[in-house]
Order: sequence, then C-alpha cells, then structure tokens
Amino acid sequence: MSLTVVGSVAFDALETPFGKREKILGGAATHFSLSASFFTRVNAVGVVGGDFGEAEWDVFKRHGINTADIEVVPDGKTFFWSGRYDYDMNTAHTLDTQLNVFETFQPKLSENSRNAEFVFLANILPMLQKQVREQCPNAKFVAMDTMNFWISSMKDAVIDTIKVVDCVIINDAEARQLADEPNIHKAARKIMNYGLKALVIKRGEYGATLFTKGGFFSVPAYPLEGVFDPTGAGDTFAGGFMGYLASHDEISDDVLRRAMIYGSVMASFNVAEFGTERVDALDYPEINQRFRDFKRMTHFEDIPFERATTAG
Amino acid sequence: MSLTVVGSVAFDALETPFGKREKILGGAATHFSLSASFFTRVNAVGVVGGDFGEAEWDVFKRHGINTADIEVVPDGKTFFWSGRYDYDMNTAHTLDTQLNVFETFQPKLSENSRNAEFVFLANILPMLQKQVREQCPNAKFVAMDTMNFWISSMKDAVIDTIKVVDCVIINDAEARQLADEPNIHKAARKIMNYGLKALVIKRGEYGATLFTKGGFFSVPAYPLEGVFDPTGAGDTFAGGFMGYLASHDEISDDVLRRAMIYGSVMASFNVAEFGTERVDALDYPEINQRFRDFKRMTHFEDIPFERATTAG
Repeated sequence: MSLTVVGSVAFDALETPFGKREKILGGAATHFSLSASFFTRVNAVGVVGGDFGEAEWDVFKRHGINTADIEVVPDGKTFFWSGRYDYDMNTAHTLDTQLNVFETFQPKLSENSRNAEFVFLANILPMLQKQVREQCPNAKFVAMDTMNFWISSMKDAVIDTIKVVDCVIINDAEARQLADEPNIHKAARKIMNYGLKALVIKRGEYGATLFTKGGFFSVPAYPLEGVFDPTGAGDTFAGGFMGYLASHDEISDDVLRRAMIYGSVMASFNVAEFGTERVDALDYPEINQRFRDFKRMTHFEDIPFERATTAG
Repeated sequence: MSLTVVGSVAFDALETPFGKREKILGGAATHFSLSASFFTRVNAVGVVGGDFGEAEWDVFKRHGINTADIEVVPDGKTFFWSGRYDYDMNTAHTLDTQLNVFETFQPKLSENSRNAEFVFLANILPMLQKQVREQCPNAKFVAMDTMNFWISSMKDAVIDTIKVVDCVIINDAEARQLADEPNIHKAARKIMNYGLKALVIKRGEYGATLFTKGGFFSVPAYPLEGVFDPTGAGDTFAGGFMGYLASHDEISDDVLRRAMIYGSVMASFNVAEFGTERVDALDYPEINQRFRDFKRMTHFEDIPFERATTAG
C-alpha cells in the first residue's frame, strides 16, 4: 500500500542554544515523508523553487520517496522559514517567513498519488486540504494536521475539512482552541464527534494521546536529556504513525496503538539533531531498540488487587 | 507491615467553579492516610485543635487509621487553609492560611509509629522531616514530599533531608526548581544522585513519572472530563503509592510500577468530589476496575518491527 503526503517542502534557518544552521532542508512534507519512508512507499506532493538543489533531492532519493509530484518552479524560490528556540524548546520564535512559491501552491496529484490508500494532509490552507481529500476517492484512511492560525481565522473551514477525514493529528493547545474547551477530554470528545475514527493529541515533552471511539491510549515522550532541535517533530511523529498504519490491511485499535509508539519513536530521533539529519541517518535496529524501550517504560503487570496486597 | 505518615491535618475552605465548602476535612496527612488505608495499616502523626470534631475523627476511624499520635491541643484551633480554583484547576489561589496549632507542630512518635517499616514525610519543615526520619531507625522505605516555599527559602535543608530518605515524591516544577535545571530528565538524575532509590514526579493532568536507578516508567493521568476539586490529589497519590508498597516484603521495580498505578488510581478518585468525600466512600471493586482501566489505556503489543511491517 502507499501513502501520499501533501504539504510544505522548505528551507529552514535555525538558531537554538546548541547551534545554528543557515539553510537546511525542512518543511512538513519533508519531515513526514522521511519518517514514513521507513515503513511504506511514500508519494510527496509539494512545490519548490529553482534553488532546491541536488543535495536536497538526494535526501528524498536515498529514502525511495516518490517526488514526481513535487512541482519545480524554476524562477521561484523555495518556502523559507527562519526561527529561534531559547532554552524552553517548546516555543519556536519565528524570525522570518518567506512563502515564495508556496504562497500560490495548488497541489497537483498524479494518478499514482491519488490512488494511495493512505493520505496525510499536512498543515496547509484547510480548503486545499479538503480539495486534496476529494481527489483521493479510494483513500481508506486520511489524516490531517492544522494550526492555531487557521483555527483562529477560519475555524469553519477547518471543521469542514475535519468532517471529510478519518483522523486529526494536532497538539494540545490546538485541540483546546478548536473545541473551545479547556478540558482536553471534553475537547477530544467534541472533535471526535465530527465523525473521526481517531484523534491524536501531541503533548510535546508529555507524549501523545490517542482517542478512538472505543478507547483512550496514552504514550509518554521518550526521556531525552537534550532536545537539540524540535522543528519537524510533529510531522515526524505523523510520518511514523501514518507510515506504520499504511503497512497494514486493517486499522485495528492494536495497530493504532503501535502506530502511536512508532510515531513517538521517530519523533524522539528527529529532535536529537538539526533538521532531518538524524532521521536521514536512522536504521532499523535503532528503531526496533527504541520501540522496545517504549515497551519497557510503560509496562506493568496487572495482577489482581487481592493477590497484590496479601503481603500486607 | 505498617506505614507511618507525618503531616498536616486541617480544615479547608474551598471555592471552585463547581461549588463551595465552608469547612471540610483536609490536610496532607489526612488525604495520605485515607488513601493508604485501603492497602495497609496506617499510623497518622499530626496535631489538631479542640475544634476537631466527632465527624472528623470518624473519617479516620472508618478506615481503621491509628490516630493515637494525632495530638490534640484543646485550647488551640486546627490548621485552616482557604483556597479558590478557577477553571484552570491546576492552580490553587490561597485566600487565607491560619497555621494555628500547626505552627509549633513537633511530631511525637509513639513506639508503634516509630517501628513502622514504611514512613511518609508529608510536606512540613524539612528539619522536622529529618528529625522524624531519624526517629525511625527500622524503616526500610522512607519517602518525602516538599514544596516550592522550602526549596526557595532553605534548599540546603531540603537536600539534607533528601539524603536520608529513599524516595522523593514531588511535582514537575518543584523538581526543576530543586535541581535548578529545566530539562526534567537531567533534573531527575541530579536529584537521584543524592542517594535515592526512587523519584516520583507528579505532572498533574499529564500523569506521573518514576525514576529508579535502573529505569524510567511513566503513567498517564486517568482521563477525566471533570476535575471537581484537586486539593489533596498529590497526597492521595502518595498514599496509594506508599500504601501499596507497604503491602510488600520486597520493593522491586515491578512493585514500584504497580504502586505508581495505584497512586494514580487513588488520585483520580480524589479529584472527583470535594475534599475526602470520594475516597472516603470508595470500595475495592472500584479500585480494581480503575487499575484495569490503566492497563487498558497504556497497553500495546510489542511485536517485532519486521513482522509488524510485512504487510506493506
């Protein structure tokens, strides 16, 4: 099965307390497809300018990502974002945003991309997300991201798009804002009621939570003494999550739970170096090892209370 | 085996968006011992005034808590705290604090209390905590709480006390403040290095995390659509945690993990009604059910990556 992602491909300039990069590969579709490529075949849909070079294309190529639907505008410049993180790595301070060719981005899906069974709509204009979803009639599981900017400025459009997807993957604050409800469980119920099969709420250093019709599943973040660069962590999570799902015929609750773990595994690697550097260099034994670490750090034996306390 | 707790017994006045209580039973030792009483024999050590009435004693009596070491000062008044919570239930706004008989509290432990194998030093002056610990030479597992006030005003005394206990149970912000380190995993390592066997970091709606020499364990909070009154949640957690430990001869990593779950179970009940009301009315089937709920919401099968992805 294959997985199509639609979103930004970008250059980032980053400053953190631990270092600086002038111009590195970034963008939601980039982080997502790199992460998902460890699990399934990925079609990336986006747009770049003539400044997008061999080194950048090579990252996609190395991971077997299909870039046929990444449009090149030779006279244009690639979307550029510049940001700074202070010691509180939870908050990105935007220094500069140049939309460039991304400003007029109209996703053009080839037949191959349209036929994917799994689709991820990264954070773009909600109306565009909806159009893409409608171009993929055979998709059996479609997930979307969004952001505070769209929720503030066009909540109705965001909700219209939510109504045609299967899964929403957003952060804590976005969920509260979307539902206009401070309690995250009430907020989740409200969002689920738009007709979702699953809702994933990303909680940064506190991990991530999955809501489905039948249940609730929570996974902590991997314990990291150093977060080097959090840019792209959410998209890398989504890539692991959707990539793992796309390797399955049936999306059961069990599969969704393991997808949450793989998402968390991939995100934990992403933040360990700048940009795509760490995930680009990742191998399967490392992924396996970290998956087992997650098992170890969440497992407990559920022996009955009576037996548990008879020593007392 | 038995468990001794030293700390406040109080009257609370509470205002939340969901209601109001003028004068209800509260205090760290109260919440702790009530919660722990479901697992083991508890000796409560504290002080109250002549205003502490039959109804209050009855709560302890109903749960078989040994109150012989709760000193009564007939002419004095019981410690009184008045607070307000807004819709953000994470922050208590103190309206009034009257230490009363608690101001000159000198814990006096009977032989029975001194001989307990398990001891919990609730949040009181760190020097007093240390004195109590030294009065219990046979204790095999001693845990302590503390608070931002002591960490700001007498950090050295707090650390001196940490050095003579086995386990610290504090919240996120206190751990960062104590270690003077924003990264919680680095902070935990620094605190563990004072010689602890275990460190529990409570993270409110995000659950709780256990650090031991060998590992890391994380449990989410029980998903609650309504938190009615969070007062005493931390002490109720500690009561379930320590109470469960005290029902065991050996404190293995497995036992500590289940203790984290029982702590979380008890805390989840505590916040559902005002003060001690919900835990006072709790029964074993309810505790069992919620323990199983925790298993359900954290469990995933760790099948190998290769098999997991062969469908792709």
